[in-house]
Amino acid sequence: MLPGSYRAAGLVDHTALVRAMLDVEVAWARVLGTPVSLGSWTPVLDPAEVEAAGNPVLPLVSALRSQVSGDVHTGLTSQDVLDTALMLLARDVLSRVSADLARVGAALARLADEHRSSVMAGRTLTQFAVPITFGLKAARWLVGVLDSLDELDAVSRNLPVQCGGAAGTLSRAASVVDPLAAAASFAEHLGLVWPGMPWHTYRAPVTRLGDALVRTCDALGVMAADVLTLGRPEIGEVREGAVAGRGGSSTMPHKRNPVLSVLVNSAALQAPQLGAQLHLCSARAVDERPDGAWHAEWPALRGLMELAVVAASQAAELTEGLEVHAGVMARRAAEAAEDLLAERGGGTDPAAYLGMAESFVDEVLRRNRSRFGPLRGEHEVPTPIVSEGSDRNGD
Amino acid sequence: MLPGSYRAAGLVDHTALVRAMLDVEVAWARVLGTPVSLGSWTPVLDPAEVEAAGNPVLPLVSALRSQVSGDVHTGLTSQDVLDTALMLLARDVLSRVSADLARVGAALARLADEHRSSVMAGRTLTQFAVPITFGLKAARWLVGVLDSLDELDAVSRNLPVQCGGAAGTLSRAASVVDPLAAAASFAEHLGLVWPGMPWHTYRAPVTRLGDALVRTCDALGVMAADVLTLGRPEIGEVREGAVAGRGGSSTMPHKRNPVLSVLVNSAALQAPQLGAQLHLCSARAVDERPDGAWHAEWPALRGLMELAVVAASQAAELTEGLEVHAGVMARRAAEAAEDLLAERGGGTDPAAYLGMAESFVDEVLRRNRSRFGPLRGEHEVPTPIVSEGSDRNGD
Amino acid sequence: MLPGSYRAAGLVDHTALVRAMLDVEVAWARVLGTPVSLGSWTPVLDPAEVEAAGNPVLPLVSALRSQVSGDVHTGLTSQDVLDTALMLLARDVLSRVSADLARVGAALARLADEHRSSVMAGRTLTQFAVPITFGLKAARWLVGVLDSLDELDAVSRNLPVQCGGAAGTLSRAASVVDPLAAAASFAEHLGLVWPGMPWHTYRAPVTRLGDALVRTCDALGVMAADVLTLGRPEIGEVREGAVAGRGGSSTMPHKRNPVLSVLVNSAALQAPQLGAQLHLCSARAVDERPDGAWHAEWPALRGLMELAVVAASQAAELTEGLEVHAGVMARRAAEAAEDLLAERGGGTDPAAYLGMAESFVDEVLRRNRSRFGPLRGEHEVPTPIVSEGSDRNGD
Amino acid sequence: MLPGSYRAAGLVDHTALVRAMLDVEVAWARVLGTPVSLGSWTPVLDPAEVEAAGNPVLPLVSALRSQVSGDVHTGLTSQDVLDTALMLLARDVLSRVSADLARVGAALARLADEHRSSVMAGRTLTQFAVPITFGLKAARWLVGVLDSLDELDAVSRNLPVQCGGAAGTLSRAASVVDPLAAAASFAEHLGLVWPGMPWHTYRAPVTRLGDALVRTCDALGVMAADVLTLGRPEIGEVREGAVAGRGGSSTMPHKRNPVLSVLVNSAALQAPQLGAQLHLCSARAVDERPDGAWHAEWPALRGLMELAVVAASQAAELTEGLEVHAGVMARRAAEAAEDLLAERGGGTDPAAYLGMAESFVDEVLRRNRSRFGPLRGEHEVPTPIVSEGSDRNGD
Repeated sequence: MLPGSYRAAGLVDHTALVRAMLDVEVAWARVLGTPVSLGSWTPVLDPAEVEAAGNPVLPLVSALRSQVSGDVHTGLTSQDVLDTALMLLARDVLSRVSADLARVGAALARLADEHRSSVMAGRTLTQFAVPITFGLKAARWLVGVLDSLDELDAVSRNLPVQCGGAAGTLSRAASVVDPLAAAASFAEHLGLVWPGMPWHTYRAPVTRLGDALVRTCDALGVMAADVLTLGRPEIGEVREGAVAGRGGSSTMPHKRNPVLSVLVNSAALQAPQLGAQLHLCSARAVDERPDGAWHAEWPALRGLMELAVVAASQAAELTEGLEVHAGVMARRAAEAAEDLLAERGGGTDPAAYLGMAESFVDEVLRRNRSRFGPLRGEHEVPTPIVSEGSDRNGD
Repeated sequence: MLPGSYRAAGLVDHTALVRAMLDVEVAWARVLGTPVSLGSWTPVLDPAEVEAAGNPVLPLVSALRSQVSGDVHTGLTSQDVLDTALMLLARDVLSRVSADLARVGAALARLADEHRSSVMAGRTLTQFAVPITFGLKAARWLVGVLDSLDELDAVSRNLPVQCGGAAGTLSRAASVVDPLAAAASFAEHLGLVWPGMPWHTYRAPVTRLGDALVRTCDALGVMAADVLTLGRPEIGEVREGAVAGRGGSSTMPHKRNPVLSVLVNSAALQAPQLGAQLHLCSARAVDERPDGAWHAEWPALRGLMELAVVAASQAAELTEGLEVHAGVMARRAAEAAEDLLAERGGGTDPAAYLGMAESFVDEVLRRNRSRFGPLRGEHEVPTPIVSEGSDRNGD
Repeated sequence: MLPGSYRAAGLVDHTALVRAMLDVEVAWARVLGTPVSLGSWTPVLDPAEVEAAGNPVLPLVSALRSQVSGDVHTGLTSQDVLDTALMLLARDVLSRVSADLARVGAALARLADEHRSSVMAGRTLTQFAVPITFGLKAARWLVGVLDSLDELDAVSRNLPVQCGGAAGTLSRAASVVDPLAAAASFAEHLGLVWPGMPWHTYRAPVTRLGDALVRTCDALGVMAADVLTLGRPEIGEVREGAVAGRGGSSTMPHKRNPVLSVLVNSAALQAPQLGAQLHLCSARAVDERPDGAWHAEWPALRGLMELAVVAASQAAELTEGLEVHAGVMARRAAEAAEDLLAERGGGTDPAAYLGMAESFVDEVLRRNRSRFGPLRGEHEVPTPIVSEGSDRNGD
Repeated sequence: MLPGSYRAAGLVDHTALVRAMLDVEVAWARVLGTPVSLGSWTPVLDPAEVEAAGNPVLPLVSALRSQVSGDVHTGLTSQDVLDTALMLLARDVLSRVSADLARVGAALARLADEHRSSVMAGRTLTQFAVPITFGLKAARWLVGVLDSLDELDAVSRNLPVQCGGAAGTLSRAASVVDPLAAAASFAEHLGLVWPGMPWHTYRAPVTRLGDALVRTCDALGVMAADVLTLGRPEIGEVREGAVAGRGGSSTMPHKRNPVLSVLVNSAALQAPQLGAQLHLCSARAVDERPDGAWHAEWPALRGLMELAVVAASQAAELTEGLEVHAGVMARRAAEAAEDLLAERGGGTDPAAYLGMAESFVDEVLRRNRSRFGPLRGEHEVPTPIVSEGSDRNGD
């Protein structure tokens, strides 16, 4: 029901999870010395059996055992398989989100650079404050993106396998393998990290992932909300790029709704609750494996991962296509000069009162360069993508 | 990914929503004087078009227009269709949840009646307090169920059609029909209520529905949490009914996990965040139709409806199959008599210090009777469903 | 730290709670036959003792016993006293919120009536839609206020005493009084309702109160958010009333920030999380009295009550002082006529395409009259409070 | 109203905030070249003026200007002062929380070491699983504490000053000082970090702080919840240390409620919602300074900081005083051996099936040592603090 969810197709749905659980079982089977080759075989799990087991692992293992002659799953508990499979999904999700954030970052860096001198009204508590530039605004959005990329990197590098057996002692595994070596090898097969001990009831690996994704949505959301405000027809300083068929109304032929911004904004209104859900589950991860708090993690984590993938992808399109009406900005700043320069004690030229705006743009672009290298065309004459908006709405 | 989600199959998924939207369009077409008969035709909506429109209505209407020669949709906006379709789903959801709550209620009423004299330790802040009866505990759970049923009834009776057109003035509808009569007729066709004006930006119909479902999950959750505690092997005073294949472990052959309680408990940990999401969207329902807050409602409402359906169905099975070990309760109460009777100043018979426990049971059963009539077998010798626990759980 | 919290002074702070707990103890003492007259005596509670007891009741009772010779508190548990005291606070809070909502309602009714013909642009997903009137917008805000008033009334009429003793059986009370008669008399003394049995672990009385307050904040919040948008200098269709010294900036002399709207908007961003907190506590109200969930209710309930009192009071001032720039609205609607009338197929007069706007205004005003009687001056020539904006905000 | 809030006295209350704001203004005054010496002068702020300004800074600056002859505040905006002051409070809070976590860590390390061989039943989904040791359980709790300490360290080292002026350009500051040098000097005076640019609308500094505190509460909460379960009288494997006057009941003389665990558990139920609040505010930090989202941060941040301080302090007392009944654990494990060894295929000695339990204990203690050095008495004969519980409840 989430418009745009097709952008996350195959990443976190039921099939992706089943495939990931199979990858986990295959990796562990190798650790046990059982060669497994499943090809594209994917079992169909009976929903009633999934519920009876409380999770999909037991039916999956039953199906797997009908395919494989050697030893499989021995020593793992269902939480080992499902937690690890979710980390595999997370890895793909983080990779996808990061790729789209890199696109957002590149687009924002270009905008920051090109509009370093595009004066516009600064607004605080909705009212005119002092002048800023659109380049500064883009640079500020970019800070959030760059920080998110760093944080997602750090989370990605530390996605852990879960490997603890029934109660986190590797009791059964210890009877068939060297358990610590096995856990390390398991992690290596899957490209994940063995954190030295199980985390069945210590859920920071999940909440850190969740917090990073929520923070990504926060950063994209504040940008979308700004675009929505600046794109109001009475303001008309930016506009979502026109795409045939997008933003139409079922009743009003003239409409060009800022659909991408609306959807990214919508994602940012949802992410905090999902992050809170993960923390609550973490706080209730009792005993050696909990009595409901673990189960309550899955929909929130899956929902949050989908939300972040979709929002980052939409944000990439949004920023790459964003129309910036520097002419409208300049005209408004000139008209509002009396207010914008009141702090200064008067004057008529907002461009003369920009403080450190350009310096801050440079600061952020330096940081962007140190991650991504120079902008395409930087230091050359920039391609003019600014449309000099000639009216409040209808450029 | 929610174990048990098959219990809500067909109620709130994508297909159900598309069917409901078609029902809405057909009802409105009748109001417009266009006879529509779609049979089982269900359009496949292009996800990219859904996103481009920001919601599934515009692609649905396009598909519909290719099937129908007369006037359809004229005068409605997409929010009219989607909000109304969600109310149709809500009606089915409320009906299903209420039916399962009635089962829970009947099971609890039987337990309350049969165990009105089954003495057990009362526990507060986890420690022994004064004696209670298991009948009182069941009666207290029942209060939550009866209150939920009343609240769901009230919500059901007031599920509204949405009918406002582009900006809530019925501007376009007014050019083709008598709009107020049309809105009323629209509601009548669908069995919903016309609340006198649109509610595009007044979302109490959604938050009231949401709050009622959260409150239902609260009531079921506290019961599940109590069952989990009382079913710990060291306590062993109740146990989920044995069902072949349920509650097994992927590694421990002896395990009989209280899966239904775990899942109901899990639902209760999730519902509050979903309810909060709906309120947040309500608070951000700006302009004549909002810029993201409406879109953020759908996953939360759909998720909450599914959660409540699944939890109520699981709770019905849980309560109908609950094993009550009155013997264990009695033995423990006797052993803990010194603590349980400390308030009283001493004594050895916990059954002599039950205060108004039975009176409260009667009070709740009276209320239950006034809704559902007498219990089967009430006033007769009750069928003994109490198992005088003797299994390995420590009885 | 909440600007405006002085508006709730004395309603929900520590002293108010202590006074309310004393009122509860005095009422119960009367039930026990002990005449108590405390005058303005208020004990100072030792914070370490409060923590040691887990709540403030035990130290309060110790202090009370040093003042009173007869029997006090016997038969109650600390939760009886604290829950009931919170209901007394809630009663005052609901009364205050309702009084301020009545002011909001009156102001909105006047605005709806006076601006029934003030044409303005309708906006959906931030873009121009079809024309509406400001009267319709005010009427829609009013629906939320009227519904809140109804819901707060219903909650107020059902605020319950808590009366259950150690484990909800009234065990100890039964040894000194007729416990059901005592509970009823206790309720009567306090002007609360005896619900027939205790609700130590059934927290719907708290979540219903909470949900109603959150819904109130939702309704006020959406109004504040609309005022903030319409009051942006580029839009300038409404403005918070000027009050000497309000809305200034620490650095910009020209600033007149819409402080009340900002603060009401801020409250609406906070209320949903507080409501969720109460539901979560409800779902974890285990055993005969829970092991933390009850304690987690207090700050959320207190915070939510304060938030609602402050927001309603601010909203009253906001709506009573709101400047409506009907001239700006009319001019913009005329300029945007091409867009606003696109649905209609063209035209130049937005006032000719208002659909049922006025009819909906009448509908809401009828409902308002049935609660509050006719507006002052209704049917007479209305006093022009519309300022035909001519200030620097761009009229 | 939070029992135990005295533990946070003076850290985050109104007075602490006012003092911190003064420290910020004094530091900035020095940057401006104005020597300021206020002694213990603390202004009383008029609540109505605080509301009129939307925050306490403007009235504070007015009061300050009446005390100081030279230039103060010039170039700052109120958000600079308040954000920076909150970071000063955060620094003290993090320092206090870390100190108490170090106590918790030391206590848990001792327990892990001493009970590395104390066999107990492992429990999953509330039912017996395979054996573990209490040392392993303590070690797992310790992981959360050590991770929290690392995360709080990282946050502490990066607490930023806010320094941006009216709209984040340092426009006014640039007219009186070298703004970048001034910002750096400002940070240095206060012992905070200058992050290179303002973060008025980029709120990750707040959400990172918030997430770290929520994660701390998660870690403490899961420990408290486990203690509550293991301390149930039917289980009796641990117990809160006895402290005269703590845990009593207003009605039941025998009661010794696990008050500290209850309160820490309660905190963990509250923290996630407060963290979500901060993220929501971050996602709504629009324009150059937002229209309500900033204001909604304060109560959540203040509430969360208080909660974490109190919970960490209570957790320190809880863990330092925890009674561990290794005898009860051993007896239960022996009695439940059939279940606990079912995975193994039978046996009678749970101690023979502990898998890597001890190895994991060593792993965590190694990490603890690398932070804190060797345990007192490590490698010597440990002081016996284990009480060999001789009954289920009444040791």
